[in-house]
Amino acid sequence: MKRIKLVTAYDGTNYHGSQIQNNGETIEGVLKAELSSLLKEEINLIGASRTDAGVHARGNVYVFDTESRIPPEKFTFALNARLPEDIRIQESCEVSCDFHPRHQDTVKTYEYRILNRKLPLPEYRLYAHFVYEDLNMDKMNEACKYFLGEHDFASFCAAGSQAESTVRTIYDLHVKKAGDLLTISVTGNGFLYNMVRIVAGTLLKVGNGQILPEEISGIIDGKDRKLAGPTAPAKGLTLVQIRYPEYEKSFNFTNE
Amino acid sequence: MKRIKLVTAYDGTNYHGSQIQNNGETIEGVLKAELSSLLKEEINLIGASRTDAGVHARGNVYVFDTESRIPPEKFTFALNARLPEDIRIQESCEVSCDFHPRHQDTVKTYEYRILNRKLPLPEYRLYAHFVYEDLNMDKMNEACKYFLGEHDFASFCAAGSQAESTVRTIYDLHVKKAGDLLTISVTGNGFLYNMVRIVAGTLLKVGNGQILPEEISGIIDGKDRKLAGPTAPAKGLTLVQIRYPEYEKSFNFTNE
Repeated sequence: MKRIKLVTAYDGTNYHGSQIQNNGETIEGVLKAELSSLLKEEINLIGASRTDAGVHARGNVYVFDTESRIPPEKFTFALNARLPEDIRIQESCEVSCDFHPRHQDTVKTYEYRILNRKLPLPEYRLYAHFVYEDLNMDKMNEACKYFLGEHDFASFCAAGSQAESTVRTIYDLHVKKAGDLLTISVTGNGFLYNMVRIVAGTLLKVGNGQILPEEISGIIDGKDRKLAGPTAPAKGLTLVQIRYPEYEKSFNFTNE
Repeated sequence: MKRIKLVTAYDGTNYHGSQIQNNGETIEGVLKAELSSLLKEEINLIGASRTDAGVHARGNVYVFDTESRIPPEKFTFALNARLPEDIRIQESCEVSCDFHPRHQDTVKTYEYRILNRKLPLPEYRLYAHFVYEDLNMDKMNEACKYFLGEHDFASFCAAGSQAESTVRTIYDLHVKKAGDLLTISVTGNGFLYNMVRIVAGTLLKVGNGQILPEEISGIIDGKDRKLAGPTAPAKGLTLVQIRYPEYEKSFNFTNE
């Protein structure tokens, strides 16, 4: 029995989110069906991050167990030959049988893209949130500093979250610009339900002057969802990378 | 009677090209239908560049005549409110009644995008040509120099072209890189049918070592389509901008 880890990229536009559900096609559903058909056995797939409908990924992580003698790294090509073009495995490798993608220490990186110009551009319509008003990137980056470190992020958690604790640590948060495209990049040890989209929605209000950078501390301390900005639209969000630093160290696995 | 110029961006994925035809939806067909419905009159639309199915645009130019009293610059918003999200007007302005988008001196810029990495990324699948082999960008840029200036580009013209002359002038051609994405940018006074895609296909063969940069002169001089590289896929191509330098000068119009 081997446990195989799949690093998976997808365009979330045409899926009802990543997690299997009864109505509508999901990333996990398609992956599981193709794996089962490839291996001719029923596959149990465990995913690292549940992404909402319309959210994209460059590096979501899935694991499954198999008796198959296919070399672990060959799953990338075997699956890509079967999967639809909007899902592409980026890496496949063996992990130890006790590796669980959600019960391990993680470092996750997300990006939130904003197209900031006077008129929308069709090619970005599914991959970036369009904002007409001029956004002040310096103020947004100033606001980013207040999020860094360990905080109770209850103000940035959507209702309906099942998280036991709302304390998380943000290691890095910054905004960069390339032409008309602003990208918010955030790295942390985990994120609450809709947290990155609420952080993005709050930074947007900093960018347009409705919230001052120095108000962020109070918004965090208030632990009240109503204090933060709105949840920015799903399509701007991409799960970029999930790392397992402790696991990688102990097993000397390289994911690069 | 006023003549209105529309600068138009579109995602060509879901269209059978830009030019109206009997079967399948086209950019021109949708634009014409929405204009006619907005103005409640039959509209004759003249386009600057015919783009193939799957080719994108950030600045294709259309003109039409109307008796309407809608201020010229308001057509941008009036049309965008009606058009599907994959077509977006970027600018509307009045031009003189003898302005014809194809019979004027033009300077056109196209970009051809190549995703150059080991595995495809879903979000680029409709907007960049995926190439697995490492491309040598320095060699591609060296090859670019041989295209510059006025040449007979018969080697870079697809069969079935109705062009009277195959002589064109290329003002600029270069390759730039941002992460995994290579962008070929070309500016000239006009391009033959499929010319940019054949130039891209030829530069790809320079990038992977099958053609040497210094062989480009001979390929141009041979005036034989068989000497050049293949026609690179449509989805990598974007019509970025069309300028009318003489017209803009004489009428002091600003398009920026």
